[in-house]
Amino acid sequence: MDPNRVLIFDTTLRDGEQSPGISLNATEKLEIAQQLARLGVDIIEAGFPISSPGDFEAVQAIARRVEGPVICGLARTHHADIDAAWNAVRDSQRPRIHTFISTSDIHIVHQLRTTREDVLGQARAAVAHARQYTDDVEFSPMDATRSDVAFAAEVVSAAIEEGASTINIPDTVGYTMPYEFTGWLGQLYELVPAMSDVTLSVHCHDDLGLAVANSFAGVLAGARQVECAINGLGERAGNAALEEIVMLLHTRAAAIGHPCGVNTREIARTSRLVSRLTGYVVQPNKAIVGRNAFAHESGIHQDGVLKERTTYEIMDATTVGLDANSIVLGKHSGRHALKQALEELGFVVDGQALNTAFKRFKDIADRKKHVTAMDLEALVTDELRQELAGYAFAAYEVEASSQCPPHARVSIRMPDGEPVHGEFTGDGPVDAVFRAINAATGIDASLREFRVDAVTEGQDALGEVSVVIELDGRSASGQGVATDIIEAAARAYLRAVSTAVRRAEMGATPIEATGAELARTP
Amino acid sequence: MDPNRVLIFDTTLRDGEQSPGISLNATEKLEIAQQLARLGVDIIEAGFPISSPGDFEAVQAIARRVEGPVICGLARTHHADIDAAWNAVRDSQRPRIHTFISTSDIHIVHQLRTTREDVLGQARAAVAHARQYTDDVEFSPMDATRSDVAFAAEVVSAAIEEGASTINIPDTVGYTMPYEFTGWLGQLYELVPAMSDVTLSVHCHDDLGLAVANSFAGVLAGARQVECAINGLGERAGNAALEEIVMLLHTRAAAIGHPCGVNTREIARTSRLVSRLTGYVVQPNKAIVGRNAFAHESGIHQDGVLKERTTYEIMDATTVGLDANSIVLGKHSGRHALKQALEELGFVVDGQALNTAFKRFKDIADRKKHVTAMDLEALVTDELRQELAGYAFAAYEVEASSQCPPHARVSIRMPDGEPVHGEFTGDGPVDAVFRAINAATGIDASLREFRVDAVTEGQDALGEVSVVIELDGRSASGQGVATDIIEAAARAYLRAVSTAVRRAEMGATPIEATGAELARTP
Repeated sequence: MDPNRVLIFDTTLRDGEQSPGISLNATEKLEIAQQLARLGVDIIEAGFPISSPGDFEAVQAIARRVEGPVICGLARTHHADIDAAWNAVRDSQRPRIHTFISTSDIHIVHQLRTTREDVLGQARAAVAHARQYTDDVEFSPMDATRSDVAFAAEVVSAAIEEGASTINIPDTVGYTMPYEFTGWLGQLYELVPAMSDVTLSVHCHDDLGLAVANSFAGVLAGARQVECAINGLGERAGNAALEEIVMLLHTRAAAIGHPCGVNTREIARTSRLVSRLTGYVVQPNKAIVGRNAFAHESGIHQDGVLKERTTYEIMDATTVGLDANSIVLGKHSGRHALKQALEELGFVVDGQALNTAFKRFKDIADRKKHVTAMDLEALVTDELRQELAGYAFAAYEVEASSQCPPHARVSIRMPDGEPVHGEFTGDGPVDAVFRAINAATGIDASLREFRVDAVTEGQDALGEVSVVIELDGRSASGQGVATDIIEAAARAYLRAVSTAVRRAEMGATPIEATGAELARTP
Repeated sequence: MDPNRVLIFDTTLRDGEQSPGISLNATEKLEIAQQLARLGVDIIEAGFPISSPGDFEAVQAIARRVEGPVICGLARTHHADIDAAWNAVRDSQRPRIHTFISTSDIHIVHQLRTTREDVLGQARAAVAHARQYTDDVEFSPMDATRSDVAFAAEVVSAAIEEGASTINIPDTVGYTMPYEFTGWLGQLYELVPAMSDVTLSVHCHDDLGLAVANSFAGVLAGARQVECAINGLGERAGNAALEEIVMLLHTRAAAIGHPCGVNTREIARTSRLVSRLTGYVVQPNKAIVGRNAFAHESGIHQDGVLKERTTYEIMDATTVGLDANSIVLGKHSGRHALKQALEELGFVVDGQALNTAFKRFKDIADRKKHVTAMDLEALVTDELRQELAGYAFAAYEVEASSQCPPHARVSIRMPDGEPVHGEFTGDGPVDAVFRAINAATGIDASLREFRVDAVTEGQDALGEVSVVIELDGRSASGQGVATDIIEAAARAYLRAVSTAVRRAEMGATPIEATGAELARTP
């Protein structure tokens, strides 16, 4: 392999999925992983297998079904963690175990409540244990940038001695600055000669807005793996945004000279998929994937750009796949045209799933003149979420006015197929629908967050509703798509309820009570 | 003044306001400028006075009424631009003129269609002309980072000779990288000895995710002014985010040693105000001001943070003003309590405005148990927009179901006070309301964008609707707040219609036809 090439390690499904309110099920995680493979990332960190049975199951499904990238599972230094990570990823063609332990005194003293010697011993034992399973072992000294570099170097040396082939340096709390990080990594190379035999990786958080710059400083200092996430998701202010790192390496390739293997044309679609499934909106002024990142997309064509594109554009929107909106179907399009359009988008839909998708497509085409690729993406993602048995929307009626409390009636199909009805009077019209759903299903969920976005522009745009609900101390999110936002809201709410109920049945612990050490990672 | 101090130059109202779909009126711009003064920025770039009569009027109002910061107006090198800028800012206690011209060959050849000699002459003449009005003149060689540094240095030298006291280096297209920018600025200092007598400023765009890092590299290279915008607003991917630069300088003060004068505790509120008035959402994982930037705000309290806060937190949420949500009113709170709470928030509301605010407050308190500081902010901002004579919401009724097309009836108060009614059957329920408004007012607006966010969490949260409409080739945005999202949507739509109509009456040109040179600036 080209010694200058930078490996792209995507942690959307691990660090990204740790963001508050995100709760992807195994089907959704698999769908994202498949898109990450199409995007051409080198490594997918698929999850933290010991953290919950659901996470284990999702990592295993990804390891079994996603081809191309290395599939990686995260583990603390405990043998049980490493065993779980291995069992989850072992069926991949290219499995990796990623183990970590804090090396900063602040973490060792206050959180781990142990000693440096113990940390050194745990790191050594963990890597040795993981190496019994696979040659591909990554080790991270957590909170490295706030660690005494001499001690972190000692731990890294031990990890390399035991056979770690990737050493990842996390800026866990987003504290470092580019020149400081460069200095830290330089010292590490000096203190650990064996670093030249392994791959240096960096993992930066964006608390001070420097995640991409610090990652890039890492590359210039010798890193050949960058850990990042789609849309910059992750703990707090998130990780370095994959799309920004990749487009920096791409756009400034002549000056930088560190290529990566990502197919940039899949960036826009990956961003939309992740935003839709996580319910995390991308702000309009977000670099690369924001609605305005390419201003001429927004209808403001400027004199300069018209005269000569490069006067104000350093990237072409087509490079990130923003032109891929050429598919247009209408109400006369048939099942075959729909199937073909979906295949162009990378979705293989057959049998009953195709029938359901076609029915929804027809409903929408009746109300909306042109059904575009972005509409189809939204629809398929919507239907994807319906595969799991759950509460399903059938019909609603609302009367609302500014003069008296709104009245809502809903018809719902229970998970066993039985139709039920409910009604409610009061609050706003959308809220009345949610409470009518509670009345119909007998489930006492409450709304925590609510958001509506339009999928495309214009009067007849599809509305996409995202909700976060709370049920018995568990929170769950759901999304729904329809031209009518009340219907979209009802679908979103029912999805969230289905997820919350399924989790309760699986016995997952409420998020508030999850072991902190489990949830907090590099 | 401390020679290490970095001046914060806010361009939210100029570069930020150039973002597609943002259309602030003079009242809204003044409100933002007043909040920027509370935030403690050193310079407010209030607009581009020659670009439209509305912009001129807003800059003038800010210059006359906002005390504290320098008030700056932007101007091309044309004398007419500079005259307009001066006339707009002259009533400020501390006026500044900021003039610019491109120095990159790509801009000179393709956009300006002139020669380097001409650019040099224009720069010299513009600064000289501006200096006839004021000592405080800033000059920017646009697209500096893609310019031949020797030529840019020649132009900068001329500008300093003519009396410019601030030299701003814009990375107009967001192209540079920290080490490259450091090198470029180092060369500029070498080539222009007089740089040591003026203030170096930097203006970075975020196209490759490096705006904050490049601005910071500028500070390390000698810049003592940073141009930035709240929430990172601005052309395309926007400018460096003010809150990120400020919190970087603040959080890492001991290592950096470059203080600034911003009162960090006003950051969160400023961010919310700008987001609300521009309709530009802040993504949850945005550094500093995103909903999740301080994870413990989101209900996920982690073991580490509970044991010792600094294990995972490098900043305290109170530092950016996220604790300022202590005010809680209820349905029994009186007019005096409301007035006092608003004053605590920095809003002085009296007379008729207080009566209107109290009536809306009571309506909401009837439906919502606790009315918090964030609710009040939303309400006041909502009422603020109503000050201008326009179409006003009176009442609505909707019947909707998944079985047949929805039917909406609305009552509207026309700008002259006359009540009108309209109805519509079809589309989704919200859309039916919008079309009923069209029928009532006789205005044929169409919807381009639609979004709903919850102001606070919970079942009884206020909903905030943002819309962008199009009317006769003009686009305009509007926001509305209510516990009922249909009512909030109607209010938002009417605001947008009022703005579009007022603009048409003022004879402003449709956005698509705005002179490109006017709209495209450093």
